[in-house]
Amino acid sequence: DPKLKIFSLNSNKPLAQKIADAVGVELGKSEVRKFSDGEIQINIEQSIRGSHVYLIQSTSNPVNDHLMELLIMIDALKRASAQTINIVMPYYGYARQDRKARSREPITSKLVADMLETAGATRLLTLDLHAAQIQGFFDIPVDHLMAAPLLANYFIDHGYEGDDVVVVSPDHGGVTRARKLAENLKSPIAIIDKRRPKANVAEVMNIIGEVKGKKCVIIDDMIDTAGTITLAAEALKEKGATEVVACCTHPVLSGPAIDRINNSSIEKLIITDSILLPEEKKSDKIETVSVGELMGDAIKRIHENKPVSPLFEKNVN
Amino acid sequence: DPKLKIFSLNSNKPLAQKIADAVGVELGKSEVRKFSDGEIQINIEQSIRGSHVYLIQSTSNPVNDHLMELLIMIDALKRASAQTINIVMPYYGYARQDRKARSREPITSKLVADMLETAGATRLLTLDLHAAQIQGFFDIPVDHLMAAPLLANYFIDHGYEGDDVVVVSPDHGGVTRARKLAENLKSPIAIIDKRRPKANVAEVMNIIGEVKGKKCVIIDDMIDTAGTITLAAEALKEKGATEVVACCTHPVLSGPAIDRINNSSIEKLIITDSILLPEEKKSDKIETVSVGELMGDAIKRIHENKPVSPLFEKNVN
Ligand SMILES: Nc1ncnc2c1ncn2[C@@H]1O[C@H](COP(=O)(O)O)[C@@H](O)[C@H]1O
Ligand SMILES: Nc1ncnc2c1ncn2[C@@H]1O[C@H](COP(=O)(O)O)[C@@H](O)[C@H]1O
Repeated sequence: DPKLKIFSLNSNKPLAQKIADAVGVELGKSEVRKFSDGEIQINIEQSIRGSHVYLIQSTSNPVNDHLMELLIMIDALKRASAQTINIVMPYYGYARQDRKARSREPITSKLVADMLETAGATRLLTLDLHAAQIQGFFDIPVDHLMAAPLLANYFIDHGYEGDDVVVVSPDHGGVTRARKLAENLKSPIAIIDKRRPKANVAEVMNIIGEVKGKKCVIIDDMIDTAGTITLAAEALKEKGATEVVACCTHPVLSGPAIDRINNSSIEKLIITDSILLPEEKKSDKIETVSVGELMGDAIKRIHENKPVSPLFEKNVN
Repeated sequence: DPKLKIFSLNSNKPLAQKIADAVGVELGKSEVRKFSDGEIQINIEQSIRGSHVYLIQSTSNPVNDHLMELLIMIDALKRASAQTINIVMPYYGYARQDRKARSREPITSKLVADMLETAGATRLLTLDLHAAQIQGFFDIPVDHLMAAPLLANYFIDHGYEGDDVVVVSPDHGGVTRARKLAENLKSPIAIIDKRRPKANVAEVMNIIGEVKGKKCVIIDDMIDTAGTITLAAEALKEKGATEVVACCTHPVLSGPAIDRINNSSIEKLIITDSILLPEEKKSDKIETVSVGELMGDAIKRIHENKPVSPLFEKNVN
């Protein structure tokens, strides 16, 4: 369909190319640069009048630049008479600021939702939101994919399956995700129950479930500074795990993350390409599974008015 | 009034302090930092329930960070039950993207206006917008101050007045501003008429008005890369100006600006502190006039429901 157009902004061009390949179209011609004073300049070099535009951008670090690129591009597309503006956001930044945990905190995830809609977005396609509630921050349709089935494929291909494997959630919030992976691997689950005995005392990692003599697969939606996951790995080893591997959808990997992972007892970390891994963060321990086809298939199904959900299943068979 | 609170974000704390001093209140307690992954974290350390909050931020470089700080703070203030949220924006970034000059361009100034309102701003106080039309992008009240009277005071104090001075507008868009300054100095004006004889040929600077044997004061709203203003200065000298000085409200001064000014025949450049001048941009040629009192007085008048406009006059007498 010549009316289906895919544009990429600057956060993750390799993934955008994979998505376009999966859909079977060329990436639209556009350029996003900065003026001398740091303001964003956008050039869209082809007509998009009447088109259904899919705009690919992860709001990863530098999040404010990536978000403004996206908002300004939406504004330009709207004024250039795009028929629909579909945001494809493999990683949704500011997702951890999703509630007032303390007085006078902002709810930046909601602010971002409002900004996208005000700018002119008509739909959002995203992946493993930190909190599924963020879908409710939008008044436009949201399609929410998950990477667990893709990650499951990787583990099955590499012999992690059945009863000698246990899937570990690093906190109570991640149990649904861990259960999804465990179902696919036909393995049991365990949960890490962090407790701080008193204020200013280090957290204690209790493990709920049996890990002794088993290969542990920790799963999280994102790994940021890698503090939690590396401590969890040590706790699992102490409790008799024979091997610890980890996986996540969003490799934020900021600050000390890579050093911590390299120095930890985590043997392998499987990530997706929802966030581009820069050269300086590459590590022998890290392997990447692409979400390009998953997202490309979702775009095709949305464009053909088909439900997006069968994807979750397709990728596990 | 204990309900009047002034908060500063990170773009220009020295000016915020001057504004607070002029109003006669202490700056509110808040902190804006970044998490390890570059996301903005805001802490408001005092209650603002029921308060009239004035939030000081220039959206200068890094503009996207400064704009997001502002939007997130507005969100936090709104959720913390501020009664009104008054944005004090000495420099309005993205103001040059105020119209579609070419096909498929964004109108980022309007996007910024929409973002501020969506986040929860209830009023805007700003200074020398690049285009006065930007006021119309808002549905909330906008108070628009001008620095020309302040700059006039500087020039009068330094003996630039009367018929041996000519105020020069570097383009046709700036004539109103030049005329305002000229009125105050009781001097005539001249206008630089840039023409490009054909495509890919350097612009020619024609001067409309008499400059021979006169001291020229060039005035612009902002100086960015300083290309226009330094070329204008050479053209004025060639036409027999005895001296060229320049002034602007907003010292954007990006890229080659400082080198160009230092190497030009501009003898002095008078700027305001609407944008903080970092240490590495200081120059013997540059002098700063503060807009702290101007903006502080405007806040007091707004808070007392008095018209803001007398300020324009007050500062020239
Ligand atoms: N970018 C960030 N980096 C670290 N912590 C964050 C970030 N954004 C929000 N938070 C904090 O993380 C907490 C929410 O995380 P969670 O409990 O995992 O949903 C909140 O208390 C936030 O203040
Ligand atoms: N930050 C910027 N730096 C340089 N040029 C810009 C910037 N923002 C917008 N422009 C361009 O400047 C022109 C408007 O400037 P003006 O004619 O002075 O109003 C437009 O063509 C814009 O594309």
